[in-house]
Amino acid sequence: MKVPAPIVWQQGRLRLLDQRRLPTSVEYLDIDSIDDAVTAIATLAVRGAPAIGIAAGYALAASAARSPQADRTAWLAGLDAAAARLAGARPTAVNLAWAVNRLRRLAHAGAGADALVGEAEAMHAESEAVCLGIGRHGEALIEPGATVLTHCNAGALAVAGIGTATAPMYLRHRAGVPFRVLADETRPLLQGARLTAWELAEAGIDVTLICDNMAAVMMAAGEVDLVLVGTDRVTRNGDVVNKIGTLNLAVLCRHFGVPFYVACPSSTYDPDTPTGADVTIEERHADEVLGTQAARVAVRNPAFDVTPAALVTGIVSEHGIARAPLADTLAGIMTPAGPPG
Amino acid sequence: MKVPAPIVWQQGRLRLLDQRRLPTSVEYLDIDSIDDAVTAIATLAVRGAPAIGIAAGYALAASAARSPQADRTAWLAGLDAAAARLAGARPTAVNLAWAVNRLRRLAHAGAGADALVGEAEAMHAESEAVCLGIGRHGEALIEPGATVLTHCNAGALAVAGIGTATAPMYLRHRAGVPFRVLADETRPLLQGARLTAWELAEAGIDVTLICDNMAAVMMAAGEVDLVLVGTDRVTRNGDVVNKIGTLNLAVLCRHFGVPFYVACPSSTYDPDTPTGADVTIEERHADEVLGTQAARVAVRNPAFDVTPAALVTGIVSEHGIARAPLADTLAGIMTPAGPPG
Repeated sequence: MKVPAPIVWQQGRLRLLDQRRLPTSVEYLDIDSIDDAVTAIATLAVRGAPAIGIAAGYALAASAARSPQADRTAWLAGLDAAAARLAGARPTAVNLAWAVNRLRRLAHAGAGADALVGEAEAMHAESEAVCLGIGRHGEALIEPGATVLTHCNAGALAVAGIGTATAPMYLRHRAGVPFRVLADETRPLLQGARLTAWELAEAGIDVTLICDNMAAVMMAAGEVDLVLVGTDRVTRNGDVVNKIGTLNLAVLCRHFGVPFYVACPSSTYDPDTPTGADVTIEERHADEVLGTQAARVAVRNPAFDVTPAALVTGIVSEHGIARAPLADTLAGIMTPAGPPG
Repeated sequence: MKVPAPIVWQQGRLRLLDQRRLPTSVEYLDIDSIDDAVTAIATLAVRGAPAIGIAAGYALAASAARSPQADRTAWLAGLDAAAARLAGARPTAVNLAWAVNRLRRLAHAGAGADALVGEAEAMHAESEAVCLGIGRHGEALIEPGATVLTHCNAGALAVAGIGTATAPMYLRHRAGVPFRVLADETRPLLQGARLTAWELAEAGIDVTLICDNMAAVMMAAGEVDLVLVGTDRVTRNGDVVNKIGTLNLAVLCRHFGVPFYVACPSSTYDPDTPTGADVTIEERHADEVLGTQAARVAVRNPAFDVTPAALVTGIVSEHGIARAPLADTLAGIMTPAGPPG
């Protein structure tokens, strides 16, 4: 695959692909402190729920390795403070808190810095395996000749490996099965236009860019066979928290009779949160919407929305597909303890 | 009202507000030939179904006045050729062809250039009156404290006068009734972000900008009381041809139980076209979507979509509101001959 890796760990140093600059330029940021990592996560240099979890894990382990370990109590206190700062860099994704807590628990159980680095590397490798699992379970959803519509970027740039929503696409493409992808722009930050369209085209997949408001007319014309998106968090009842615009697509799917699938590593399943209504939705800065072209007026900019479980046809995890009604099937597919993703 | 007029006719010369440069700069283009007019219409310097009809009417009358009238046969042939070029500048809006044909018919019935200029001025004045009529009939739809969501720009910039979809808003605002407007961006050309948000804010109306993909979450939160949009053409059966993204909103309205209204001057009603499926939908250039930020990939860029009559709550014209089922009510409200608009 020709898509550059979003996260590179080389000789104890973390480097992150600066996704804000894609597709214009392919540049890496050196992450040498918790400050660097928090900034990279908060400003979306690294984005995608699994990728920010892995990046935060590496950043925390590297920080722990740089800190003096002679006074273990002080070292643990520093680790906890760094973990809290990383977890607060973005409020919506469950993976971020999950990843730093995994390292914190290990440290509090007696592990040293080297073991934390090893654990971060393990999370990274596990995430690649999870993507492959999602691809294996999901690829049959894409029938030969089908058109898949996707939103935002739940691709190789958002995860380690072949992505989550894109994993079935990459496996189908490798197998030589013909299909087509519609990538919507995903305003305001254009992750679909800048990232998904770019990474799929780089990989040789037939991809066409549309504006977010064109999905309805494509479905009305019978040009969409399924919608397949990623997610930042699936709550216990099967509600799907994902990039703003996902609910829009789910409603259209219901109206036009198009299946609506969500790719979700089991680490993104959050059984501790009852419903989507219990999730804090990040409201981002107005300038992301206004850019240079809009009138200087009041703006709403919620970064995510909640798609009710009732609108979801199925959730594809590395363990299999949970199909509607999700309240009956989801817990059985996802391992409640939150396995690696 | 502080919104600059989109069309200015001064001492026999047509000037058009260059809406491509809004809101960054307020500049007028001198239109001194049919070429100038065709370019201004095709590149959206002037846009909005009623406005392009009026602009084309003035351009045609001015061209007729500039042409030698000694040889009447040659003069009429030149007029017909100019009318055909103007009518072809944009394929979707019915007003463009309607306006130039109104002048052509008059010329072929014996009128001279001065009479054509007078007729263009009359169309302009009639359009202002039509907007006022739409406002009068539609203003009761906006209850005190309501939130209206609108799409694209069917405002004062799109028409002469107080706009079509915006007419009820301007009248309510003048009457001191409190309400709020959500303007969506309207990708790819951002008419909502650049034009509607700007003109409503200039007029002192409480307006908030959202991305197209945020309408669903606003409706899910109960923050939208009605959707009110303009139209480029309503076909005999009540199908609504309007800016891409309109169908999306209509489907969301149906799902969330929000009324969906369309402001339509009777001149925009096209009883000669049976259904929306019979309308040519303009596909515009990929660069409008790609801009500078997107990956260089294949693009779909339909400029309009068709909202089936079954999703429309009502159509507000200067003669009154045609309510669903439109097949039974529309012809009675609209005067089939196509009165001025």
